[in-house]
Amino acid sequence: MPNQKSALKIALIGHGFMGAAHSQGWRVAPRFYDLPMQPEMTLLVGRNAAGVEAAATKWGWAETSTDWRQAIERDDIDVVDIVTPGNSHAEIAIAALAAGKHVLCEKPLANTLEEAEAMAAAAESAGKSVQAMLGFTYRRVPAAAFARQLVSSGTIGQVRQVRASYLQDWLHDAQAPLTWRLQKEHAGSGALGDLGAHAVDLSQFITGQLLTGVSGILETFVHERPLPGAESQRGEVSVDDAAMFTGRFDGGAIGIFEATRMATGRKNSLRIEVSGSKGAITFDLENYNSLGFYDATAPNTLQGFTNIMVTEPEHPYMSAWWPTGHALGYEHGFVHQAKDFVEAVAEGRQPEPSFADGHQVQRVLDGVQRSAQNASAWAQTL
Amino acid sequence: MPNQKSALKIALIGHGFMGAAHSQGWRVAPRFYDLPMQPEMTLLVGRNAAGVEAAATKWGWAETSTDWRQAIERDDIDVVDIVTPGNSHAEIAIAALAAGKHVLCEKPLANTLEEAEAMAAAAESAGKSVQAMLGFTYRRVPAAAFARQLVSSGTIGQVRQVRASYLQDWLHDAQAPLTWRLQKEHAGSGALGDLGAHAVDLSQFITGQLLTGVSGILETFVHERPLPGAESQRGEVSVDDAAMFTGRFDGGAIGIFEATRMATGRKNSLRIEVSGSKGAITFDLENYNSLGFYDATAPNTLQGFTNIMVTEPEHPYMSAWWPTGHALGYEHGFVHQAKDFVEAVAEGRQPEPSFADGHQVQRVLDGVQRSAQNASAWAQTL
Amino acid sequence: MPNQKSALKIALIGHGFMGAAHSQGWRVAPRFYDLPMQPEMTLLVGRNAAGVEAAATKWGWAETSTDWRQAIERDDIDVVDIVTPGNSHAEIAIAALAAGKHVLCEKPLANTLEEAEAMAAAAESAGKSVQAMLGFTYRRVPAAAFARQLVSSGTIGQVRQVRASYLQDWLHDAQAPLTWRLQKEHAGSGALGDLGAHAVDLSQFITGQLLTGVSGILETFVHERPLPGAESQRGEVSVDDAAMFTGRFDGGAIGIFEATRMATGRKNSLRIEVSGSKGAITFDLENYNSLGFYDATAPNTLQGFTNIMVTEPEHPYMSAWWPTGHALGYEHGFVHQAKDFVEAVAEGRQPEPSFADGHQVQRVLDGVQRSAQNASAWAQTL
Amino acid sequence: MPNQKSALKIALIGHGFMGAAHSQGWRVAPRFYDLPMQPEMTLLVGRNAAGVEAAATKWGWAETSTDWRQAIERDDIDVVDIVTPGNSHAEIAIAALAAGKHVLCEKPLANTLEEAEAMAAAAESAGKSVQAMLGFTYRRVPAAAFARQLVSSGTIGQVRQVRASYLQDWLHDAQAPLTWRLQKEHAGSGALGDLGAHAVDLSQFITGQLLTGVSGILETFVHERPLPGAESQRGEVSVDDAAMFTGRFDGGAIGIFEATRMATGRKNSLRIEVSGSKGAITFDLENYNSLGFYDATAPNTLQGFTNIMVTEPEHPYMSAWWPTGHALGYEHGFVHQAKDFVEAVAEGRQPEPSFADGHQVQRVLDGVQRSAQNASAWAQTL
Repeated sequence: MPNQKSALKIALIGHGFMGAAHSQGWRVAPRFYDLPMQPEMTLLVGRNAAGVEAAATKWGWAETSTDWRQAIERDDIDVVDIVTPGNSHAEIAIAALAAGKHVLCEKPLANTLEEAEAMAAAAESAGKSVQAMLGFTYRRVPAAAFARQLVSSGTIGQVRQVRASYLQDWLHDAQAPLTWRLQKEHAGSGALGDLGAHAVDLSQFITGQLLTGVSGILETFVHERPLPGAESQRGEVSVDDAAMFTGRFDGGAIGIFEATRMATGRKNSLRIEVSGSKGAITFDLENYNSLGFYDATAPNTLQGFTNIMVTEPEHPYMSAWWPTGHALGYEHGFVHQAKDFVEAVAEGRQPEPSFADGHQVQRVLDGVQRSAQNASAWAQTL
Repeated sequence: MPNQKSALKIALIGHGFMGAAHSQGWRVAPRFYDLPMQPEMTLLVGRNAAGVEAAATKWGWAETSTDWRQAIERDDIDVVDIVTPGNSHAEIAIAALAAGKHVLCEKPLANTLEEAEAMAAAAESAGKSVQAMLGFTYRRVPAAAFARQLVSSGTIGQVRQVRASYLQDWLHDAQAPLTWRLQKEHAGSGALGDLGAHAVDLSQFITGQLLTGVSGILETFVHERPLPGAESQRGEVSVDDAAMFTGRFDGGAIGIFEATRMATGRKNSLRIEVSGSKGAITFDLENYNSLGFYDATAPNTLQGFTNIMVTEPEHPYMSAWWPTGHALGYEHGFVHQAKDFVEAVAEGRQPEPSFADGHQVQRVLDGVQRSAQNASAWAQTL
Repeated sequence: MPNQKSALKIALIGHGFMGAAHSQGWRVAPRFYDLPMQPEMTLLVGRNAAGVEAAATKWGWAETSTDWRQAIERDDIDVVDIVTPGNSHAEIAIAALAAGKHVLCEKPLANTLEEAEAMAAAAESAGKSVQAMLGFTYRRVPAAAFARQLVSSGTIGQVRQVRASYLQDWLHDAQAPLTWRLQKEHAGSGALGDLGAHAVDLSQFITGQLLTGVSGILETFVHERPLPGAESQRGEVSVDDAAMFTGRFDGGAIGIFEATRMATGRKNSLRIEVSGSKGAITFDLENYNSLGFYDATAPNTLQGFTNIMVTEPEHPYMSAWWPTGHALGYEHGFVHQAKDFVEAVAEGRQPEPSFADGHQVQRVLDGVQRSAQNASAWAQTL
Repeated sequence: MPNQKSALKIALIGHGFMGAAHSQGWRVAPRFYDLPMQPEMTLLVGRNAAGVEAAATKWGWAETSTDWRQAIERDDIDVVDIVTPGNSHAEIAIAALAAGKHVLCEKPLANTLEEAEAMAAAAESAGKSVQAMLGFTYRRVPAAAFARQLVSSGTIGQVRQVRASYLQDWLHDAQAPLTWRLQKEHAGSGALGDLGAHAVDLSQFITGQLLTGVSGILETFVHERPLPGAESQRGEVSVDDAAMFTGRFDGGAIGIFEATRMATGRKNSLRIEVSGSKGAITFDLENYNSLGFYDATAPNTLQGFTNIMVTEPEHPYMSAWWPTGHALGYEHGFVHQAKDFVEAVAEGRQPEPSFADGHQVQRVLDGVQRSAQNASAWAQTL
């Protein structure tokens, strides 16, 4: 019974949209999975006292604080879960690791390559008994996890081509306001870091190959936008609206990538197609529960893409959920993330993706930026 | 803050697969919606003491009992939530209503028309301050709720035709064992009651019309199956494997219906298409977050079915969830059900669907059975 | 070389839309297939002299006539191809067969059961050296022909359920004029005969089973429509707008059927899904080149509907056409029909579907009408 | 009546797969469209006498020759239609234009940039009464032509992003033989010229913008293949198996492109998606008759991609064909091409795409090759 299990006390730093998602992960994981430790929603941290209290009440966190350092100073806190904007990740995570806390950090790892490198180094220095994990939750969509299995088992043969894109459209309207996500000083980059990071990570996760170099272009279509709360005034957009790049993987595959928040009609379309010598897989996050699979070894007249509903108990993560054919949704990735994190901590092993994995993704994104600034010349990333 | 809200103490009777779903509903609803009362997971009831205790620990129910009558006798329990097999619904629900408890009852309302009628009468007698609701949760899939809005607002004009089917395939293998769901004495009917009930309810919910009569056929393809735990022995399947029927609605529409658990390849496909004089809608539960919409008043060259991702904040139930394009899944229907139930109780009004609604659906299913036994002759159902 | 082949001289009776399609069939078939005889477009017949001459010039028919009896009286004519409205089929076909002409007759075989029976008898009496064929060209869509192969080879196991519908929407507007197709005296029936005939034939063709009985309903939604050319006046619609029925096949399968020209948004959707004990197939004419195939014997995690592009050289009819992946369209069915007809004539064997096959389909449609007039009571059809 | 029309005598040079397609175009166009001149299939030219005679008999060409110069020397020939491999296009086309023949030339315009330039110059020099046209027939797929209309009318607003790819898989098997298409001396390039040319042309056609520069990578996955007819021996593949590139358009849009014949499971998938400020369109040649359209100005709850069946009489090219919903296929593009060519010749105006258009596409492909050889550095193409 869970109450006989060791508790794993969590502090969540940040309480925006991602705070709701992480809270749901901690709340629900032990109700469906038989976890080795019992996560406890102990402390919620946010700068605004009223805001953090309201969020804690709504989401079920026992205590609140307005200072993230309390989470690190308290001996009873086991895990620091960071969902603040990217420019504060490094400071919090490095301090937490130094204090021996396990850390779960939302993506992107950091806004700069230097911070990302420092975080990876801190995770490395923290030792094997302290775990650090990055929140690329789309790895934990069952269809994506199953795609990786199909590739790693050789089912689609030698991987040759990857098409990966993350398309949204919530910025397509030129009158949408200039939020922090459109300012380089706060967000680091635009669609590239926000969405491209997922496309890069998922392509590497599924193929098991790393990008060795890239060539790309960045573009900003709307250069000025209304200031929030002062709509007659306009401010400059200092990040990219769209990123397009090609890349080469260390296993010999090539890839083509796109990230944008201005692809009209695409709401949350993280797509990947992997072509191998013996088959192919295709996935679109807008069809969360489906995976396309093509088997080039099937009889000729029966070949075609099979629309697999990834809801069988034998599919990754699915044995804990509903009968075949019953859909999961966005937040289940966070439940699976919480499960995997708790298991890794209990077993004393490094969960994936590590901070080093995140640092490597940042190097790829940095390569795209360097290439784009240099007339698309090839940029090494490994 | 919720802890200043009145508590609404729940007792859940039953702890199978549906118990997990209802538990998730009570657990999650107050974390995303600002409810007028605070549901509390107070008592879980099941016949097997060890089983119910394990379930209560896993799901987070405070107390357990092996006798459902305790839930009714306890003054502090406000709501009795029934997820037992259909043949016990009437006894529990009628007793609970008589004791002044609000009741949420999983579908089907009952296994027999007589029990259903008695339950509807009990709900009627209980008075306006006691609420009774039936668990047709698919009404609370956002796409289905939005479909109803489109029809009721006249967007697709006069409804003419309905195509509704609920297809699964988990019984397609003739070697699948003879469970209680295949025995008339326990399950009442086969695919007709299990799945056809949903198709009937959803078609009536979306169109706002009631079925006045039906003509149908029932068929059992596999007459004997291995007994569970004694596979060398076989027992008789005494329910239908498939039901097909036509029907007429009180608003002038006609409909065609199918229910089966032997439609190879269909995992959880509750489909409905409604054709109106000005447009059409189409939905398939296997694409949980999508609704097809055809606008016959659009310019001729631009007409076609639009694949609406029902994830905008303006869509039913969606303002509480994630940004546009982020998928919901099966269990969200139970969260929405918990929300709607709590709000109805707090506001002292009858939630939908009522027990009377459930009784009417049972009359339709009974009509199909009568017709099937009478060479498909037309059977009045209203 | 074709000019060394025996000529097969064709007379086409009728020059509406179907005349264009049949002409394309005769014109194109010998250009892609190596036929045993050379079809020659010899005589085009129509009532209106100017109209038939214009059509002959446009379509490439050598001669014209305004009297179909000329086609029968001329010794050099080998084939009479009938594309007139259904109420003239019997007279022309019976006369042609009596004169020893091979006959290709567009569907429906006839408007009445009596005429259909007489035509089948005439084909039977004509002897083995005279061929008669009915134009259910959708059998000759490669995907449909391949579906039949999959069923007959046992690939999907025992057939249990059939869902077949033919949905169009060109009559959804209540202001669409009252053409001959909406008048019982000219058209025999409405959607039932026009579209339902295809659904019935295709379901029997693919499954290899015949319908033994049916139960159905018919409905007319728009009872009066503007007269063509006199739009202020209205006339009565005397045929059905929609037909829905259930049926039983002689091999043990059950089926559900719909035909309508008022399914908003469905342009030419002849759909069929066949569920078997080991798999399923699904087809929609709106996706002409695709066939859905589900293999229930595949590994559990890889099951799903495969979207087969039926364009491999090994697929039926496809070796004569383009490389893999290049689409065929509507008129190719007529090319395939011409090919099959010429081959059957050259080989002295009965082509399919025969007039007897057409008569049997008419009996099914008649059964639906009888049932609909008799409170949906079961009607035997075999 | 056509026989009163001026004849337009065609000579077709080449009789491979493309010869069959062009023949079908000339044969069928006058049977469905009311053309201002009557195309006559006069002369078929091929090197092999027996082969060309057999083809002429099968396809219906009146005469044959083994020397393409005869087509140019004969005074009665009006049109030279070239479907030979790309390395002979320039010589034939330039000679034909010099002789005052109208020329239709299959893509690619030429194998080298120099030849393409010379051909464009020859077309320019030939004067306004001599027409030269390049065979990018996919512009004449109704859905693609309609997409262009939607963009040029401003329906999707300012074009921002283009995703274009042409994916096939017939070379995915490393044991597929080394045909001339895999040898640089015969084919010029691999997937880039064969398929990428279509993706580039279609993207420019639909957007109305030209590519000003590109950055790309090329890759050959299978370096050696069995020699045809001597399978124990292997020869070197000297062209690309895959091309991926980014580009910028002169109207401000950016684009991402891919061409490969090794995308397992993709049979003939020429896809394009264009994102604009007010909407988007999406097309896939594997769904020949469909166009996806997203209207960002529609009510928020009703937005989504509409699957337009491009078969209405108001859609481009469709008034001549079948009723709504009846599919066209691959060869219809050639029928439309023949129609457009005949009309342009009759009206004395330059048809599109011109040789200059083809030359510009070649410059883009050349830019991709230059960039790929130069570490993906940006290459100007305009």
